[in-house]
This record gives sequence, C-alpha cells and structure tokens, in this order.
Amino acid sequence: MAVPRRTSRDIRSESRLDALHAVLAAGETTRNEIAAATGLSPATVATVVGELIAEGIVAETKLTIGRVGRPTATLTMNAARGRVVGIDVAETYVRAVMFDAALNEVASVEEPRDEHVHDPASVVEGIGRALDNVLEQGGVTRAYVLGVGVALPGLVQGASGVSVTVPHWNWHKVELERLRERVGLPLIIDNPLKVIATAELWLGRGRYCSSMITINLGTGVGAGIVLEGRILRGATNSAGEWGHSLLVLDGRECRCGRRGCVEAYIGAPGIQQTLREIEPGHPLADLTMQRDFIDAMAEAAERPDPDPAVQKTIERTAYYLGSALADLVAVINPEIVTLTGWTTWALGEHLLPATRARLVEQAPGRSADDLRLEVSTVRGNSVATGVATIALERFLTDVGLLTTRIPLAL
Amino acid sequence: MAVPRRTSRDIRSESRLDALHAVLAAGETTRNEIAAATGLSPATVATVVGELIAEGIVAETKLTIGRVGRPTATLTMNAARGRVVGIDVAETYVRAVMFDAALNEVASVEEPRDEHVHDPASVVEGIGRALDNVLEQGGVTRAYVLGVGVALPGLVQGASGVSVTVPHWNWHKVELERLRERVGLPLIIDNPLKVIATAELWLGRGRYCSSMITINLGTGVGAGIVLEGRILRGATNSAGEWGHSLLVLDGRECRCGRRGCVEAYIGAPGIQQTLREIEPGHPLADLTMQRDFIDAMAEAAERPDPDPAVQKTIERTAYYLGSALADLVAVINPEIVTLTGWTTWALGEHLLPATRARLVEQAPGRSADDLRLEVSTVRGNSVATGVATIALERFLTDVGLLTTRIPLAL
Repeated sequence: MAVPRRTSRDIRSESRLDALHAVLAAGETTRNEIAAATGLSPATVATVVGELIAEGIVAETKLTIGRVGRPTATLTMNAARGRVVGIDVAETYVRAVMFDAALNEVASVEEPRDEHVHDPASVVEGIGRALDNVLEQGGVTRAYVLGVGVALPGLVQGASGVSVTVPHWNWHKVELERLRERVGLPLIIDNPLKVIATAELWLGRGRYCSSMITINLGTGVGAGIVLEGRILRGATNSAGEWGHSLLVLDGRECRCGRRGCVEAYIGAPGIQQTLREIEPGHPLADLTMQRDFIDAMAEAAERPDPDPAVQKTIERTAYYLGSALADLVAVINPEIVTLTGWTTWALGEHLLPATRARLVEQAPGRSADDLRLEVSTVRGNSVATGVATIALERFLTDVGLLTTRIPLAL
Repeated sequence: MAVPRRTSRDIRSESRLDALHAVLAAGETTRNEIAAATGLSPATVATVVGELIAEGIVAETKLTIGRVGRPTATLTMNAARGRVVGIDVAETYVRAVMFDAALNEVASVEEPRDEHVHDPASVVEGIGRALDNVLEQGGVTRAYVLGVGVALPGLVQGASGVSVTVPHWNWHKVELERLRERVGLPLIIDNPLKVIATAELWLGRGRYCSSMITINLGTGVGAGIVLEGRILRGATNSAGEWGHSLLVLDGRECRCGRRGCVEAYIGAPGIQQTLREIEPGHPLADLTMQRDFIDAMAEAAERPDPDPAVQKTIERTAYYLGSALADLVAVINPEIVTLTGWTTWALGEHLLPATRARLVEQAPGRSADDLRLEVSTVRGNSVATGVATIALERFLTDVGLLTTRIPLAL
C-alpha cells in the first residue's frame, strides 16, 4: 500500500477539523478564540467557519456588541443539524446511543445478546433492533439521522475488500451487505480500538498532543493509538492489539488460543485469575459475572479495612499493567496514556499509583518520567461515542468538508 | 507538544523529497519516469527537478534524441556536489564513512575505542580523529563537506534542550558544544534506531509503503519505525526501544538493569546465553568477542553436519525473535519488517524461516499472514549510511529545499 499523497485539499480539511474540534471543546466560542486555540490565521478561521456554517454544522447563536469594534458572533455546534447513532456490539450486549450533531447523548438503549449465538442473521437483527429502539426512544425517524456507526468486537479489516474477524464470527461481504440493508442509513463499521482512539482524538486529549495512547480495560484489553492527530490503523486495521502482545512468554493461556498475552493478566477474567492464585478459596474468586466481580473488587478496596487478598490482587494487576504499558512506551514513546473502559471506571483510581510507579521503573531510560498517565476524560460509553464520531466524520466527508479516508464506510 | 501544523510548504517539500528518492533509487532517470514512480504530475516534477538542479543536487547528464518529440534529458544525483560523512559511535569502535552527494560510499575508517573509557573528552576526540582520518583518506578538506552526522548509542533527546543518555555517559550542552567545535562542520546527532529507519526510508523499502519496521540485531537490538513516510520518534526521541520491551516478565537480567527484556534474549550476548543454557560446556559458549561468537555460529550452522546445540540455539533464538516481532506487529501492524545489523548479516538467513513461522503463529488474528519479513536491502554499515543521510537532509533543509524538522541539528 503506497503512502497516500497529501494535498492542499488535505490541509484545508485539517483546518476545518481543527476549527470544529475547537468549537466542540469550547461549547461556545468565537472566531478569535478559535484562532487562538488552533494556531490558524484569522483569515483561515473566517473561511473555514463560513464553510461549516454553510453546511449547518456550526451555528452563530448571538452577537455580542462591545464598546469598540464590530460585534462578535458566538459560535456553537448546530446540535439540530441531525442525529448520529453509535452502536457498541459486544459479545454479551448491543448498546445503541443516539447523539445530536454536537455529540451530546440524547437517547440510549441496551439489549442483551446471547453470547453463544454467533449466526450473522441474529447479530444483524440485534443491531437493527437496537437502532430501531433508540430512534423510537429519541423520537426521530431515519430521515433525521446523518449516519450510523457500528463497532464490532474483533479485527475489522478493509484493505482487500471488507471482512470482519470476530472470534466465532466470520463476516464477509454478504453479511455486511445484510447489515447495510437492515440499517438503511449511511453506515460505517470499525474495530473498538480505532473507535476509542477516535473518541480521544475528538473529545479527549488526542488532538493537541503529538502522540497519545488510550487503553481499554474490560473483558478484553487493547490500545487506541493517535500519532500527530491521526489514528494509527496499521496495514490491516489491526494496530493497537496490545492485549495480545506478550507479557510472559509461554505464560497463562489466553482466550485467543495463544499463551502469555497481556489480556490474560489484566483483562477482567485475568484479574480474577490473579485473585484465585493469591487466595484460591476467596469469595470473589468464583463470581461468574465479570462486571459483578470488578465492582465487588472496587467495593472491597474502598472499605476501611481492605481485604488483603484484594489489595494484593490490585497491586499485582498494577504490576502487570505497568509492565505492559512500559512496553508500549518503549515502542511508541507517547506523551500521554489514558485509561478507559468499565474496569477503569471501577478500579482505575486504585490501580493508578502502583501502575505509574512500575511504568516509570520499567520504561527505557527516562522515557516515562514526563509521561502523563490518566483516567480518560471521555466518559460514558466511549465505544458508542467514538463510533458515532466516525459516523459524523463520514457525513462531513460526504458533504465535502473533510478528506478523511474512512476505511469501512458501507 | 502540539501537533506540528502542516502547510503547503511541507507538501512542496515532500514532492521534492519524493523526486529526489526517485532519482536516488533509479540511478539514472528522466522527468517522465519520476512522474510515473512518484505519482506527481509532470508539471510538479518539472518544477521540483528544476529546483533540485538549481541547487546542484541533481544533474542533467545527457540528452537522448528520439525519432519524435523533444529530446529527453537523463537525470542523476550530482555526486560532485560535495561530501557527507556518517559516524557510527559504538561502545567498542568509531566508524566514519564518507559518501558523495549521491550517497555512494567513497572512503571509510574504523578506530577501536576502549569501552571502559567514558570521559566525554576522549569520546569527542575519537569522533574528531575518525572524521579527520576519513577526510584524509577521501582526499578532501572540510570546505568540500556538506555536513556530518554522528549516531550515538543510547537515547538522544532534544525536546527540552539536547541531551544524550548513553549507559555510563551523561552528555549535556557542554559536551555537545565541544563535539560541535571539534567537528567544525554542520552537524547532526541522532540515535541509531532513528538512523537505521532513515536509511530504510531513503534507500530501502520505507518510502513506498505505509508502514515499515526495521530491526537492528547486534549487541543491542531495537526497532526503527517508519509510518506513512515519516520516522516515528516519539515524545522524547526514544520510540523504537523494542529491545527493552518485555519478552518474559521477571526473566533474564538485561544489561539495562531491568529483567526480561527482548535484548537479553536476542542481543548477541543473549544468544550466547541461550547456547550456554542448551549446552553449558559448548566450545562457542565462552568466546569472549561477540562478533567472533556470531560468526562462529553462522559457520557451524553452514557445515554439512550441523552442530545440534548450534541448531537448537538458532531455533530457540528464532522462537524468541518471532515472538518479540509478533508484539510489534500486534501494536503497529506494519506492511513490512526488515532485519539489519551485524547479527543479521551473519545469521539472518538461518533465522528467517523459523522466525517467520513463529511470527505468523503468534501475531493476533491474521495480521502477519501478508506481512513481508526480509533481510534489509540496505547493506554496508546502515548506521553510518543513515546518519549521513540525515546530514544530507539537514543540508537540503538549510538551503530551503526541505522542511524536515531535524531534532538534533547542532
């Protein structure tokens, strides 16, 4: 695959995106503030804001008249431009979240999924039903929806035709065509890691640092990587699969079939395995639902007299996590690492101090000394948010405002 | 650090660089062939070739008159434009290589270094002496040299002032100022991993694929990473320190002071350690010079009746290397991985088949199925070549042809 040649059209596209991010981040802003926040010249800001207003993406809401000079227009995202929907398809649930065009959440539904049913027809129907329900809850018809994004668990590859490799799923053109028909709207699909990176890029820390990694901690674990304002996708859209890099050669069995993967130690079942190794008969060691287990761990850690086995499990997990993050720092050397996902929401603050200590100790030279390690500021379901953001980006591309290459636009 | 804003000047710079790489790669070429090789328009090629000729970087060597149309000019690099020198400073030697402006090697010298002497004055003097000697051997004075590049082993950081962290060295402004004075020419310094990546980008596979990793195998090991035609440097210029990512949590001691690093298994001393574990009394296990050991391994492997302990060591090393490469593939998902460095020249072809098998097995999903794994096509000392290339790039930047940001130009 050749390096895509960048053109002056790409530069105009980037200026529009920077201005848009400045409006999103500020909520309410002005042309002067956009110029200050982005480093774009006032003339460029005037041009790109004009284009965003012409497409109804940004709105002028009021004029402030000062004592001198011309009145200043307040700019906001035009929330009423339409809706976008992000759908997070996990093995155990389908969650659909509707956003207005300013990326505020306006409705959401979650439908359980039987994790033992893998036939594409039932998955497609589950996605379609979640979409129908969220539209109904939000009180809008398809005509008002600018686009839909679906995050599918597993590797979503688009280089040579589109195919989706989810454990036990094997989706190719025919299943995707079926999904496209069922959705009946402009559709993009993507991998959760690219999606959480996009959420950080638009709504979190990603846009204004040269390199950022966001780590998803849940059943599975992985890394969304943003370099110089762009998502690292890799040759086959599988960059960021850090959860299946090695922590321990020939170590614990991983559900991917290999041994010693990072995920086998810091995925939720891996954390439970650590507790089992520390105290085999511990009451939390046999909880069957992962989220219950993680929540119970957090609760136990917050008690005035913390359970020593729980404490030890958290320390050990931080040691694993810090070691595995140090590998990412060794290779990518980012400015900032953020943590996201439901394990983070429950245990993140308990894990952070020891994780940071291990990371600084283990990273090469002094490469982690100035690294920022934080819980992500993008809250809610960052998978649904991120994939809705890509759907909006696709809409902006379709109307000619951006030149983003969306690999899996259907 | 904010994302550098890209401008139309950067795009013109990239066009010049693409044209230059096309001339370098072809040896002799024409404007039409450059347009075909780069995808640039004939008008753009005409402009940028004109600029390169005006600065004496490219030369028109002859006109071929066909039966129809205008005569066609043959273009080559203007080797006579001047010289650049690349200096590879290792712990045990300093090697200086002089190139003409077409990056052909014209002279080289190697001076041994006492690896126990770390005082900056002696290191600086060693570099200066190697430079003086290669100039003398090449029969030119400093006036004819466009620039000098020095690759220093260790982390070379430029974000907050320039500093160099080599094991046992601690170079800051004062040492670098001393080096700059001793060299007495436009100077750049860099880390070997950035330098080998630059060599691949200019002279190997890097320019025409979206993502490439080149692996240096020697005493130490590391990765040079090229994404979309640019070197991944990281926040503190320490990206690519894959040699100090974990292969085995709490595993073998590494010379960096941590445990379980990739380098402790596939650096030359690590390979010898593996042989010692397989057959403690083996005659090669106690060779004291690393290069002798690696050469003896290659020789033993090439015998008609190969030594079983040597065979087993090579298999085990390939298992380690394939596993560690799979981690890079998981995170970066490149199109191509090349191997370079003196261990590669000796053992690369013996390691490749089993390394490839392990890599495909261990990489997530099918992400390594189409990956190309090859011995680098950049031969000779790729550290000296790469750092000389950056010195040439700095010259092109100084004369206004490129906008490359050279972090450590002194």
